[in-house]
Amino acid sequence: MSASAETGVWFVGARGNIATTAMVGARAIADGRTSTTGLVTEREPCSRLTLVDVDSLAFGGHDVRSGSVPDAAVRLAERSGIASRDVIEAVEDDLAAVEDDICRGTTLNCGAVSELADQRPLEADRTVEEVVERLREDLRGFRRDHGLERVVVVNVASTEPMLSDPDRYDSRAAFERAVAENDRDLPASALYAYAALVEGCPYANFTPGIGSAVGGLRELAEEEGVPHMGNDGKTGESLVKAALAPMFAGRNLRVRSWEGHNILGNTDGLVLEDEANEAGKLASKGGILDGILPDIEHNRVRIDYAPSLGDRKTAWDDVRFEGFLDTRMKMQFTWEGADSALAAPLVLDLVRLLAHADGHGEGGLQPHLASFFKAPIAVGEHALTRQFGLLYDYVDRHAATVLPERPSGVSIDD
Amino acid sequence: MSASAETGVWFVGARGNIATTAMVGARAIADGRTSTTGLVTEREPCSRLTLVDVDSLAFGGHDVRSGSVPDAAVRLAERSGIASRDVIEAVEDDLAAVEDDICRGTTLNCGAVSELADQRPLEADRTVEEVVERLREDLRGFRRDHGLERVVVVNVASTEPMLSDPDRYDSRAAFERAVAENDRDLPASALYAYAALVEGCPYANFTPGIGSAVGGLRELAEEEGVPHMGNDGKTGESLVKAALAPMFAGRNLRVRSWEGHNILGNTDGLVLEDEANEAGKLASKGGILDGILPDIEHNRVRIDYAPSLGDRKTAWDDVRFEGFLDTRMKMQFTWEGADSALAAPLVLDLVRLLAHADGHGEGGLQPHLASFFKAPIAVGEHALTRQFGLLYDYVDRHAATVLPERPSGVSIDD
Amino acid sequence: MSASAETGVWFVGARGNIATTAMVGARAIADGRTSTTGLVTEREPCSRLTLVDVDSLAFGGHDVRSGSVPDAAVRLAERSGIASRDVIEAVEDDLAAVEDDICRGTTLNCGAVSELADQRPLEADRTVEEVVERLREDLRGFRRDHGLERVVVVNVASTEPMLSDPDRYDSRAAFERAVAENDRDLPASALYAYAALVEGCPYANFTPGIGSAVGGLRELAEEEGVPHMGNDGKTGESLVKAALAPMFAGRNLRVRSWEGHNILGNTDGLVLEDEANEAGKLASKGGILDGILPDIEHNRVRIDYAPSLGDRKTAWDDVRFEGFLDTRMKMQFTWEGADSALAAPLVLDLVRLLAHADGHGEGGLQPHLASFFKAPIAVGEHALTRQFGLLYDYVDRHAATVLPERPSGVSIDD
Amino acid sequence: MSASAETGVWFVGARGNIATTAMVGARAIADGRTSTTGLVTEREPCSRLTLVDVDSLAFGGHDVRSGSVPDAAVRLAERSGIASRDVIEAVEDDLAAVEDDICRGTTLNCGAVSELADQRPLEADRTVEEVVERLREDLRGFRRDHGLERVVVVNVASTEPMLSDPDRYDSRAAFERAVAENDRDLPASALYAYAALVEGCPYANFTPGIGSAVGGLRELAEEEGVPHMGNDGKTGESLVKAALAPMFAGRNLRVRSWEGHNILGNTDGLVLEDEANEAGKLASKGGILDGILPDIEHNRVRIDYAPSLGDRKTAWDDVRFEGFLDTRMKMQFTWEGADSALAAPLVLDLVRLLAHADGHGEGGLQPHLASFFKAPIAVGEHALTRQFGLLYDYVDRHAATVLPERPSGVSIDD
Repeated sequence: MSASAETGVWFVGARGNIATTAMVGARAIADGRTSTTGLVTEREPCSRLTLVDVDSLAFGGHDVRSGSVPDAAVRLAERSGIASRDVIEAVEDDLAAVEDDICRGTTLNCGAVSELADQRPLEADRTVEEVVERLREDLRGFRRDHGLERVVVVNVASTEPMLSDPDRYDSRAAFERAVAENDRDLPASALYAYAALVEGCPYANFTPGIGSAVGGLRELAEEEGVPHMGNDGKTGESLVKAALAPMFAGRNLRVRSWEGHNILGNTDGLVLEDEANEAGKLASKGGILDGILPDIEHNRVRIDYAPSLGDRKTAWDDVRFEGFLDTRMKMQFTWEGADSALAAPLVLDLVRLLAHADGHGEGGLQPHLASFFKAPIAVGEHALTRQFGLLYDYVDRHAATVLPERPSGVSIDD
Repeated sequence: MSASAETGVWFVGARGNIATTAMVGARAIADGRTSTTGLVTEREPCSRLTLVDVDSLAFGGHDVRSGSVPDAAVRLAERSGIASRDVIEAVEDDLAAVEDDICRGTTLNCGAVSELADQRPLEADRTVEEVVERLREDLRGFRRDHGLERVVVVNVASTEPMLSDPDRYDSRAAFERAVAENDRDLPASALYAYAALVEGCPYANFTPGIGSAVGGLRELAEEEGVPHMGNDGKTGESLVKAALAPMFAGRNLRVRSWEGHNILGNTDGLVLEDEANEAGKLASKGGILDGILPDIEHNRVRIDYAPSLGDRKTAWDDVRFEGFLDTRMKMQFTWEGADSALAAPLVLDLVRLLAHADGHGEGGLQPHLASFFKAPIAVGEHALTRQFGLLYDYVDRHAATVLPERPSGVSIDD
Repeated sequence: MSASAETGVWFVGARGNIATTAMVGARAIADGRTSTTGLVTEREPCSRLTLVDVDSLAFGGHDVRSGSVPDAAVRLAERSGIASRDVIEAVEDDLAAVEDDICRGTTLNCGAVSELADQRPLEADRTVEEVVERLREDLRGFRRDHGLERVVVVNVASTEPMLSDPDRYDSRAAFERAVAENDRDLPASALYAYAALVEGCPYANFTPGIGSAVGGLRELAEEEGVPHMGNDGKTGESLVKAALAPMFAGRNLRVRSWEGHNILGNTDGLVLEDEANEAGKLASKGGILDGILPDIEHNRVRIDYAPSLGDRKTAWDDVRFEGFLDTRMKMQFTWEGADSALAAPLVLDLVRLLAHADGHGEGGLQPHLASFFKAPIAVGEHALTRQFGLLYDYVDRHAATVLPERPSGVSIDD
Repeated sequence: MSASAETGVWFVGARGNIATTAMVGARAIADGRTSTTGLVTEREPCSRLTLVDVDSLAFGGHDVRSGSVPDAAVRLAERSGIASRDVIEAVEDDLAAVEDDICRGTTLNCGAVSELADQRPLEADRTVEEVVERLREDLRGFRRDHGLERVVVVNVASTEPMLSDPDRYDSRAAFERAVAENDRDLPASALYAYAALVEGCPYANFTPGIGSAVGGLRELAEEEGVPHMGNDGKTGESLVKAALAPMFAGRNLRVRSWEGHNILGNTDGLVLEDEANEAGKLASKGGILDGILPDIEHNRVRIDYAPSLGDRKTAWDDVRFEGFLDTRMKMQFTWEGADSALAAPLVLDLVRLLAHADGHGEGGLQPHLASFFKAPIAVGEHALTRQFGLLYDYVDRHAATVLPERPSGVSIDD
């Protein structure tokens, strides 16, 4: 079901692969040129919620690279096989129109990302407070120009280095004082998140950066009743880990070593060649296994840049475990996914679910969205199916009409 | 926790790899020579139930092959690396003693299994009724000789061909009439199950055969209040499928093809070279995916015998799926497990949990044991973590003392 | 270097994937729209031979299915990613023109292939002799219409069942008597080969069928001085085997088991679902390992049809071997190739090299072409690099100008 | 065939896994407890040479770690499954006796290896010249005590960091001056090699260190007529690369990316955690592909330490290539080898072949041994089968009696 609200989506990283794919997909669905495969909200049980239509969404965002969304779409199709040329051609005009709503952004403390930027970042000639003010104006302008009831902000920018000592921004007062005093340690992801929350825009952090997870912003979101969630979309290898690790745990099999090797060829891979940026990513990837298999001895993730792969990521994981009588066994898998095609529908799902929460006055963190994230803020549950359970329980509480059964529901027939 | 009942375990297939490994493990645990890794009942939350001690179990069973349990144990250690020579030596006397409690069995309608038998099967010179009577006497003798309060029967024999037209045995009356009238279409697995149930012995069918799943035996178990469950232990490739398929379903990813290729080198592999026996196995393996991914286009499982692998099974699975914008992606995995080491602890878990149910007067089917089986009788739920949930709910209802939290429990901390 | 002869290529199976890809590629190279990657004859040392130009070749052939080459090309591009739409569009007119030179063929003793045919096969209302006469007329017509100096015939039809008792056609006289006496056991591949050889057309059998390997045709080719070679193009998994097996042999590692599992989704896969046709294929695949690793214990190849793969074939091979101190080790690989893209350049290479041999009066079998075939007729050498050596030696004997060194040549520098 | 000379083997790294495995194997062969699987010299055509018997070899060596060879053997058997306990027990006394012939060594410029040493290294209180003198005395003592005609030295120590600016030791004079002047930049591997060569001992460098490859030592070996060869035994992933890469090259398939990820759990892995030591290893691993596939775009090797693997190394390689019509394809493999079991027989082969060369007065570099090394000194040929060809040609020149045919020989039968 769908709600007829005017909803806008504001991407931090609007010309990147994920945002581009989300926009291509939303328009192609509107056009009837593709299925809704990959959208969790188009499937039972979430499809029972009254959600904003995917094909009515307006798009805009910030970016620090020039280029254009239509060009990014063509490149994705050619290099990575995401969307056919027919689809791209059909939605090209819509994508071109989005360019009018893309504004220059900030790369404050973004490490190697800054080097990819070919636009002068906002912070080059502004105080932090002025940067924030500009970001807020951009959001207000987008809402005003399109007559939107609600704008949902989603951070899909590249990985930034980890923020050291995040506790210094642990209260709203501390965070706002830092902004006012031009504290240039503040990372871009937090500034975007701050701008969103003070403008009352629901916010999702799909990257490993700190975003709204810092204490001061969590307090702010709580006080202002703005729904938000993060961090780091769970799209590929991590998704598989979250599905498999509970199997080992539930069967009392002792995983000794889990070694993951990712090779990828997109901008994300290039940024992760930088060690500081990589550290941010690895921290969030490692947590899933540590959460589900607390006794694991060896848990390492490698990410290597291999340009010829394009947006297609390949992960190889090697898992060694012991069973009964301490017998040694192993499992290995390769996962060959198109990152943006995995991420984009989740971004649209988050927009719809955050808009829903906002419409129901549910501010603050949204733990029922844990299944979408590698490191869900303040949620200790990492097992995928149990995270799905949190979402399904939310649906049960809200569903307009209660249908007789869930997918894969337990049915005892005799 | 443990209950101080005198419990016996009666294996159908007592000299096979699974039974042997279970006995080696139980005695090695009693001896302190191995950990309890692999035992679900030794892990939270099941460890909160008051269950019979693994190290107090008495063992016996039926078989149609000669040879001896100690020899089988040595062979497993040497060929497949299950248990060290030290462990085998330490438990050898106990294993040898079990030989006194192994009786000759039946291979009625067991297809290729019959050819492996080197003992004259019971049915060679008996009516079906006489075979059943003999099986029952063996159970009574075991109980009497060891002064057991309870005997749990577990079928760990090799795969038998599928029973055609099982509906003809759909009521207790029909089944018992068939026994009385010497209906030689009755398969061995059902005769063993019948003998167990009429003797009041809890029963688990760890093989793909019909066992107690036939309507007449389900009625009997219900009437007599005897707990039972099956079919086909979920130990390797199928376990992984049950963990992974819900990931695809939950994310609305469209699985088009799932091709599984198993190579294995043990007796099970040899029996499955026979097409009729293989059909029985494949039917139960295929159901998991069809249950979780109803729209799958291509779902095939191959099982090939490769003698040099011993008891080590290797599965290779190739999964093709589509995501957003109909983008094609894939996942492949290899699973290299020691079948008996995976199966044996589950058999002990089932014994403990069936004895628990019996002690609490819970007769009939035990759907909370679904996670142990590839094709859990009368349970529509195939997603592994949700099957674990059924078990954990059972524990919650019974646990002596309620501890504050579950493993991997949801904890919202802020 | 290139020779300015007018050479035609006649495909048995002209509308199939391999022929189509070869024609698309030849025209795209002529157009400058693709590289010569994949062509062995465009690389040192073969590039030193004076060969007919790839872009000057004329194409025609037999087929038993209707449809059209341009349609087949579009389907390959869309389903299997072979050639971009731009390339297909650029060569479309050339492909359409080929249709004028495609004649109806025969499916005599082709097993499951016959069911795919949607044209009335020649043998439906003709004796074998009349079928042969018709095939020869088609070849003569093609040569005459295009003013060709030479026509090379390549069999790229689907796998036909194995010919039983091939010795009955062991002499030219016996073969020709069978044709004259309307012996309807003669398989299509041999009739095509016969027609080619008596017309003086060099012939390559790229399929597992008997083709020109039957004794009578070898005698004929020898007598008439027509070069020919086969059988069964070595394109994917078999190529890898021929490269890897000599490594195990050369290091005295004892391979105990080599299990290969192929899944593929093209017509070839569909035909191979038929057991009789599959047997023909497997016989030729198995020989490589048996030739290089005579002591192998277990050598099995599975071929399964998985429609969603299109022309993309995936092979998974599991190799178990023993080394020093009888230590057990293993290797596994997956090979994901586009069958037609692997086969098509080899077909063009064979055309060029057979035309070269014919121009130099080298009739009969061409053992230096062994590296192109899974089961090279009358060649005992299966190690890939040594087969390459046979080809390089041939080049050394013929090369117009002798260049100073070979690729990867041994150079001792000190 | 075998030669009845008294030959000794002197290991640099005598208590390490490779030396230990070589000694266990040599003694087990003498005892008839294992086959000669893995020994290249026990197979056609090398078996036609008159070589020293494997079971007559005397063993000794240098090491910087205490512990004992029998303990190392037991650990290998238990942790990595190399040799059964029966074998270890049978040869234990022989192994213990070797301890009398193990002397304290040097770790000069060995990087992280030094930290593993628990013996005071020779250089701690000696000049370089004194270290060399001591190493020479040890060699002379071993020869004298066992009445040996010839001692072959093999370096099987852990990887040392790369020597910077090796050209400074480019002449014998420069090298000997550096020794005399106590140049403490000289790496241990070169000192061992120097000691061997001046003592007239044939020398093989089985590690990636510089060893005898430095110009000054090559000159010395040439002048003194001592046979030597290196570097870095080609045992696992590199062996596979050398077998596979020529397949891509020979078929004109364009390899764009070859990414290798090795995980291993032995001391070698631990040492390679150190970046300087790893650099030395990677340089020698990368060269194989660059040599065979000069146009490769991306060629990376990762080596990660995963303690639970023991001596079992697992490599995962991902190869992306383009074929005809620029079609993208890929191959992936896993190689699961027991490093020491792969290396040890090659070490024995090298001893036998170097002793043979020495007996025939063939001093200096031995290019026919290229197939044994990842980075064969002064040999440009990297294709495995062609390297085997160099060895077979050597055999052809020397073989006592010429047998009718080679293994896998070309035989044209018609």
